[in-house]
Amino acid sequence: MNIKILVNGKIKEKFAKEAIKEYAKRLSRYCKIKMIEVKSEQALLKNVTDKTHLIAIDTDGEKVSSEELSHMIGDLGLRGKSDVTFLIGENGVLDGRIDKKVAISSMDMDLDIQGMIIYEQVYRAYRILNNEPYHK
Amino acid sequence: MNIKILVNGKIKEKFAKEAIKEYAKRLSRYCKIKMIEVKSEQALLKNVTDKTHLIAIDTDGEKVSSEELSHMIGDLGLRGKSDVTFLIGENGVLDGRIDKKVAISSMDMDLDIQGMIIYEQVYRAYRILNNEPYHK
Repeated sequence: MNIKILVNGKIKEKFAKEAIKEYAKRLSRYCKIKMIEVKSEQALLKNVTDKTHLIAIDTDGEKVSSEELSHMIGDLGLRGKSDVTFLIGENGVLDGRIDKKVAISSMDMDLDIQGMIIYEQVYRAYRILNNEPYHK
Repeated sequence: MNIKILVNGKIKEKFAKEAIKEYAKRLSRYCKIKMIEVKSEQALLKNVTDKTHLIAIDTDGEKVSSEELSHMIGDLGLRGKSDVTFLIGENGVLDGRIDKKVAISSMDMDLDIQGMIIYEQVYRAYRILNNEPYHK
């Protein structure tokens, strides 16, 4: 599966970049994952391809458990949807195009923290899908 | 206010330690905050003082917004409760002693991620309480 973490903005904190790098490494045996940071609406729209399944992280979205997120990813794979985009940051311009809104939390979190969490949850999802214990 | 982040277990990831260090630095002008990691039930119980207001982070807890968390911290200050403990990790042994259970998310998260989030949210809470814009 190809997973794109699309960031409408920028991951700024050093610790967040390191966390993302670490999870990307652990995820490399389960999927292709890459992060793209965009600075304009135009770039945002350009990076949402027609075929991708677009999941926006949004405090108004559905509050799903880690198991539910893993099932979501598993089901997309079964349905032949091999291209998934998780969008973090302002998503208004993509209203109508978004396939699903998912909430991590009722709390506001900056992009750095959201980015780390998404990577960690995608990693967790693959561990669950593969019946593997969580850690490394 | 004295804030203790009590971890029933250990923060293992390097990036999490760095994030916590960074937020602790930013928080130093708002409160006294320290993290204590414990390895046994005995140590856990010993680190919950009689006077502290004990908030356990628990997926079954109340889902609060960042604003609500900031009000919670602000109210405790007004009520003269100047000692607050946030507990992350297994909390069963403290059942009955916990003053409030708060959920960060419906998703399971390891202690590293939870630790970073709590620090970020406490920092965010103080920025909100002081009517300051979020970043640094």
